[in-house]
Amino acid sequence: MQARPTHPGGDIRARFDAVRGATERLASPLSPEDQTVQSMPDVSPTKWHRGHTSWFFETFLLESFLAGYGDYDPGFSFIFNSYYETVGPRYARPERGLLSRPGAAEVGRYRAHVDQAMEKLLDHMAEDADVGFLTELGIHHEQQHQELVLMDIKHVLSRNPADAAYGEIARGAGSGRRKLGWLGYEGGVEEIGHAGAGFAFDNETPRHLVLLAPFELADRPVSCGDWIEFIEDGGYSRPDLWLSEGWADIQHGAWTAPMYWSRPPDAPAEWSVFTLGGHHNVVPHEPVCHVSYYEADAYARWAGCRLPTEAEWEVAAAGFEAVGNTFDEAICHPVGAEDGPGFYGDVWEWTSSSYAPYPGFRPAAGSIGEYNGKFMVNQYVLRGGSFATPGGHIRPTYRNFFPASARWAFNGLRLARDL
Amino acid sequence: MQARPTHPGGDIRARFDAVRGATERLASPLSPEDQTVQSMPDVSPTKWHRGHTSWFFETFLLESFLAGYGDYDPGFSFIFNSYYETVGPRYARPERGLLSRPGAAEVGRYRAHVDQAMEKLLDHMAEDADVGFLTELGIHHEQQHQELVLMDIKHVLSRNPADAAYGEIARGAGSGRRKLGWLGYEGGVEEIGHAGAGFAFDNETPRHLVLLAPFELADRPVSCGDWIEFIEDGGYSRPDLWLSEGWADIQHGAWTAPMYWSRPPDAPAEWSVFTLGGHHNVVPHEPVCHVSYYEADAYARWAGCRLPTEAEWEVAAAGFEAVGNTFDEAICHPVGAEDGPGFYGDVWEWTSSSYAPYPGFRPAAGSIGEYNGKFMVNQYVLRGGSFATPGGHIRPTYRNFFPASARWAFNGLRLARDL
Amino acid sequence: MQARPTHPGGDIRARFDAVRGATERLASPLSPEDQTVQSMPDVSPTKWHRGHTSWFFETFLLESFLAGYGDYDPGFSFIFNSYYETVGPRYARPERGLLSRPGAAEVGRYRAHVDQAMEKLLDHMAEDADVGFLTELGIHHEQQHQELVLMDIKHVLSRNPADAAYGEIARGAGSGRRKLGWLGYEGGVEEIGHAGAGFAFDNETPRHLVLLAPFELADRPVSCGDWIEFIEDGGYSRPDLWLSEGWADIQHGAWTAPMYWSRPPDAPAEWSVFTLGGHHNVVPHEPVCHVSYYEADAYARWAGCRLPTEAEWEVAAAGFEAVGNTFDEAICHPVGAEDGPGFYGDVWEWTSSSYAPYPGFRPAAGSIGEYNGKFMVNQYVLRGGSFATPGGHIRPTYRNFFPASARWAFNGLRLARDL
Amino acid sequence: MQARPTHPGGDIRARFDAVRGATERLASPLSPEDQTVQSMPDVSPTKWHRGHTSWFFETFLLESFLAGYGDYDPGFSFIFNSYYETVGPRYARPERGLLSRPGAAEVGRYRAHVDQAMEKLLDHMAEDADVGFLTELGIHHEQQHQELVLMDIKHVLSRNPADAAYGEIARGAGSGRRKLGWLGYEGGVEEIGHAGAGFAFDNETPRHLVLLAPFELADRPVSCGDWIEFIEDGGYSRPDLWLSEGWADIQHGAWTAPMYWSRPPDAPAEWSVFTLGGHHNVVPHEPVCHVSYYEADAYARWAGCRLPTEAEWEVAAAGFEAVGNTFDEAICHPVGAEDGPGFYGDVWEWTSSSYAPYPGFRPAAGSIGEYNGKFMVNQYVLRGGSFATPGGHIRPTYRNFFPASARWAFNGLRLARDL
Repeated sequence: MQARPTHPGGDIRARFDAVRGATERLASPLSPEDQTVQSMPDVSPTKWHRGHTSWFFETFLLESFLAGYGDYDPGFSFIFNSYYETVGPRYARPERGLLSRPGAAEVGRYRAHVDQAMEKLLDHMAEDADVGFLTELGIHHEQQHQELVLMDIKHVLSRNPADAAYGEIARGAGSGRRKLGWLGYEGGVEEIGHAGAGFAFDNETPRHLVLLAPFELADRPVSCGDWIEFIEDGGYSRPDLWLSEGWADIQHGAWTAPMYWSRPPDAPAEWSVFTLGGHHNVVPHEPVCHVSYYEADAYARWAGCRLPTEAEWEVAAAGFEAVGNTFDEAICHPVGAEDGPGFYGDVWEWTSSSYAPYPGFRPAAGSIGEYNGKFMVNQYVLRGGSFATPGGHIRPTYRNFFPASARWAFNGLRLARDL
Repeated sequence: MQARPTHPGGDIRARFDAVRGATERLASPLSPEDQTVQSMPDVSPTKWHRGHTSWFFETFLLESFLAGYGDYDPGFSFIFNSYYETVGPRYARPERGLLSRPGAAEVGRYRAHVDQAMEKLLDHMAEDADVGFLTELGIHHEQQHQELVLMDIKHVLSRNPADAAYGEIARGAGSGRRKLGWLGYEGGVEEIGHAGAGFAFDNETPRHLVLLAPFELADRPVSCGDWIEFIEDGGYSRPDLWLSEGWADIQHGAWTAPMYWSRPPDAPAEWSVFTLGGHHNVVPHEPVCHVSYYEADAYARWAGCRLPTEAEWEVAAAGFEAVGNTFDEAICHPVGAEDGPGFYGDVWEWTSSSYAPYPGFRPAAGSIGEYNGKFMVNQYVLRGGSFATPGGHIRPTYRNFFPASARWAFNGLRLARDL
Repeated sequence: MQARPTHPGGDIRARFDAVRGATERLASPLSPEDQTVQSMPDVSPTKWHRGHTSWFFETFLLESFLAGYGDYDPGFSFIFNSYYETVGPRYARPERGLLSRPGAAEVGRYRAHVDQAMEKLLDHMAEDADVGFLTELGIHHEQQHQELVLMDIKHVLSRNPADAAYGEIARGAGSGRRKLGWLGYEGGVEEIGHAGAGFAFDNETPRHLVLLAPFELADRPVSCGDWIEFIEDGGYSRPDLWLSEGWADIQHGAWTAPMYWSRPPDAPAEWSVFTLGGHHNVVPHEPVCHVSYYEADAYARWAGCRLPTEAEWEVAAAGFEAVGNTFDEAICHPVGAEDGPGFYGDVWEWTSSSYAPYPGFRPAAGSIGEYNGKFMVNQYVLRGGSFATPGGHIRPTYRNFFPASARWAFNGLRLARDL
Repeated sequence: MQARPTHPGGDIRARFDAVRGATERLASPLSPEDQTVQSMPDVSPTKWHRGHTSWFFETFLLESFLAGYGDYDPGFSFIFNSYYETVGPRYARPERGLLSRPGAAEVGRYRAHVDQAMEKLLDHMAEDADVGFLTELGIHHEQQHQELVLMDIKHVLSRNPADAAYGEIARGAGSGRRKLGWLGYEGGVEEIGHAGAGFAFDNETPRHLVLLAPFELADRPVSCGDWIEFIEDGGYSRPDLWLSEGWADIQHGAWTAPMYWSRPPDAPAEWSVFTLGGHHNVVPHEPVCHVSYYEADAYARWAGCRLPTEAEWEVAAAGFEAVGNTFDEAICHPVGAEDGPGFYGDVWEWTSSSYAPYPGFRPAAGSIGEYNGKFMVNQYVLRGGSFATPGGHIRPTYRNFFPASARWAFNGLRLARDL
């Protein structure tokens, strides 16, 4: 189960307010129509994310701990339950885009109703261990959905025939392409996973020993320029580079580049990329984004390297502070670190590790136990956070995960090799 | 091609304004979110209907006849072209629900832009035969989409887990169940189809001779009460009553009643029906609605009768004035005529006639020729109009058509039998 | 119901033996493996056809009329029932290719068992009206399946990467391309449908009056050479020629020629066609075959003509004797008549008529009533028989039918136009 | 790449002959029809397995090493290539059941042709390292396909409505249910993977160190009786026991028991199981078989345990000789070991380990490198062999793998827990 940090009440209430407000600011450039559309089953409408994160507080806190709390709308539990089987029946995920009602404004009223009740609860019970822990969990849960809002709306807008943008992106001038260097590690018996006072999700625990052979990690993620070399060397047409499922995937999807890349009709030798700011040129020194595990794996094989394991990544990254181009920078695009290895922010980095429980892992009792454990099959771990991850939400032990075919998340990669 | 009536210019401009305004009033109870959702590929979002009907005037009139007309947005032709292959490429129909932009308000501005230009055009060129004819066609086209708006939004709202309504429905007190009577016809060589001065679609022409054997038609559509008898007699579980495709359809869909009927959880022996006004009890004397051709055919077989041909229907109905419970009544629900055979309004009536060109049929030259002719396969003709058909839009020769499996249209039936 | 002819007992037994033997001769070039494969849901394995036609006699005759008859295998009714809902549950059609057992040899033993019992029955009861009628029906039913065996095995073999043939085809030397001529008809009130003593299926009855406008029919079917002109004139890439569903069909299937046509890799400017005798050159003067209704309709539109109605076809063809290139010729391929209009044999000819009951049609009582009537929706009528139709099985009133998209049947077309 | 053992020529030729002959004996009870059917995309027809294993020798040995070797049929490479992208194009896997030709007898002739040529090659070149290694690989490859033949034909026969059997199964009298005991291990740094002289597949290499926490393994696989307790305790209806994907899988498939289990219509409280010998009663003390990873995982959670990792399994099993109920016993069914932990034979045992390359793994150069490596994603490792694995083909380091949803393989499980 989640490690339970102790936080002073004042602090948690302030963070609660800050995170809840941030979600609303994130949604504010989006029209009611933008907030309604679901462009594929994996994507949820913005207003659904806004409602679901509120339902989380209502279900796991207000209904249990706030005497006399009245649901805003008894039908919302059916609509806004994401995947908690033990909480009750729920609306089918692929049909979230059919929910014209409640509208975006009503979801705003629902959020206000929940916020008001939560503030009342926190005023009186923030010291209660369960309330504190579950509120903390709800805050981190909402931060995860902030990144999902951006992933999902990018996909929605990309399906629009017009060049629809979420907003401006603040791309740096850039420093030209940085030559790849290597960081060496001796391996041996190391420790990974979360322990101690700060918040962590249950899937980061328990801290445990791992045995590593000597290895090297690249000192930056793979860049768009690197990826263009891969493309130009026939990377997408050489079956020997690909996992069998990946080869089938790119054939089926007729993919010849990362998701959102295209050749501009008026400059067919160039590459354009759809960003949260609309279509822009591909900038070679920026980290490549929106590649599947299959593509990451094929690239690594082409480069004569491999993907790191999550243990290698964590051992290496733990030596650096968890700062970088996160959502706090308000750049809204991966730009690449000027210096340092850039383990945090910009793009999530695929590891070769299948998402599995750590030795001795126990999910929390009750419905909250469905948070992470039941997804530990057929997914691969990513590390480090992206430009869309809220600052302060990322840490060395954080385990993100996606199916190997997922491309709409802000996923890139970093090379590893044996020493 | 369409019979080309001559209308005084003033009249057409007034009718243009009236019909365009009616569309906007129809959409006005719907939120931007309601207007965005597409609940199945057959359904289009309300704002798409509003845009498409405007595109029709822009494409077939303004771009050809109004010198100096500037498109509101050059990208709109791609989005709002429904099925005119010869006009250019178009956005895929099943993805209309992905179009968060243009929003409902912007579609309103587009409509105003088109209206202003059309008024300018009509001020100067309403006497022009092509302009007059195409404006007339655009008006009737928009009236068709007014009914589609209601059909489609009913389906959208029906998918909402809450009891979402379009508005109030003005159900009459009702007169109890009317016993079925029969109207007899001698048959022989008769004439059907449109000729003369009034507007008609090209598929209603040319007027031509048909040979009919003596027949009878019921003096009212089949009612909900009649249908309940069919259900209770095992109508949905006796394969001998069904066309083979229909039997497969109801097995696959697990259908045991018309679309939108359900058993209320708290009164499982009753029937409830989802209407534009939300869930209500089924009223036995009201015409049954939302049945597929397969269901209509099975019902008729169960009743020892058959469906009428479209020629029989037209010959019989031509003797009555085309008035009834149309959209002008603002009832928004089929209630059944107090007296008279009720050939018009309430529900469209399935005929046994496959939708085919009349002998000697020629579609119009050019893109407008795609309006009707290319759909003349695998569809069945319906006659008479529904509660959602604008008054004045229906006439004895009017041919509506849907695939045999279509249930979301306002379709019912009337019995026929040989004499 | 079927018109019930009276036949002398001796005659019917001889015909029973002849038809049953013909089926086995038809299957004899096919290995057990050939007889097992199902290449698409519409196709049935050869051994299934052999079993099903035997089941028909067992179910509708032996079980009712032959005292003490013992089923060969009680499980066979489940396997070999095609679509008779009222007879009992049945094995799913798309899974017939999963039936490795019973094997081809065992099906042969089942046939012998049924034949022996049928002979016993016919020895004693051929004079019985029901036995006589049902045996007659079973004989004609088996003849229909003889054509299906050829249609289906052609499709099976076409999916083999090797050039797999059913046997030799006896293509004539040919007489070069025959110029198209026209046969004129005055129309008026005519009579179509079956009446009288000979056998006919129930769907050919009752004989009834129809009203026809003056028309012309081509004096031969459309040829492969004609079709090549259509292709070379862009027939498959001009949407204005196509029904909307047809256009979608050819886009989806990427079709640019009739089924089984291809460009030989070593002669990409030529057309090759897969026949029951393997791959051969397309011969221009032969009737075109394996076109869907959509293609036939588009071709007719391109040629400035239309397809005939089934009434027009029957009125015209009734004046000619029903002889031509049928299966009795053992050519196994459409070759075209040297002279005469060629109404019979070679290829089935699409008409524009939706398959519907004739006025006053009544299917037979009981399970046999499922033979034809329940398929009268979303299909189009074909007339005239093909090279694979047994001689003597075809007649002017015979109505074949297929969905508009069907291409694997031996379907061609003949042009019509208004006078 | 594969470890290359040195074998005397005489020995390898004898083993080649033995294995090739064993395949033909395995197929001999199956009719040509049985050998043709493909019951789902994962299944291949028996004659395809017989051909493919021959193609393997032809492609990787005869074409490279036997001067003057002439292909039996140049088209066979297209048909019998399984998944070697670098060898050339190939026939689509889901369509193998469409291949009526070559027939079973012709495949037999192909096998004889290859055998003769291989014997010639081995007479002269068995000492050649490449020939020796590749022949060894081909022999082990063919042994893998022997198990696949049984898995696949079991599925084919299970789809037959009759009770179709492959042959008799020799179920033991059984010793009643054996109480579960536990074997304890201290963990620490251990070594797993293949090294040394015997044959192993490349995926078993290199031998490497792993770090294990103390653990226990059950002393026998989970039995059918255990599984019935799980079922009766609501195991298939409690979402908290299941991985999310597994829960969706059992809902979608409406699964309430292992594959091939059913309730006999005449004894609905009992469990019946379809075996290679047809339908039989479930015997409680036999190991449970045909469960997916999801089911294995849910069972372990229900039992308060977990699945072992593959490293735990190998460390534990390495202490025992690799003998048990393999195909050499000719029982053709899992019966359970009378004593000993039963690590080998009976059923493959799911581990919790995702199928991944061992540290330092390198696939062989060239096409043979496609043998294993490209499947290392989204699969889980199984250990120990089954009743259908040829004796002598199994060893402690052997890694089998299937997707988590696979049920048609002979897969069971063994419990593990932390100490």
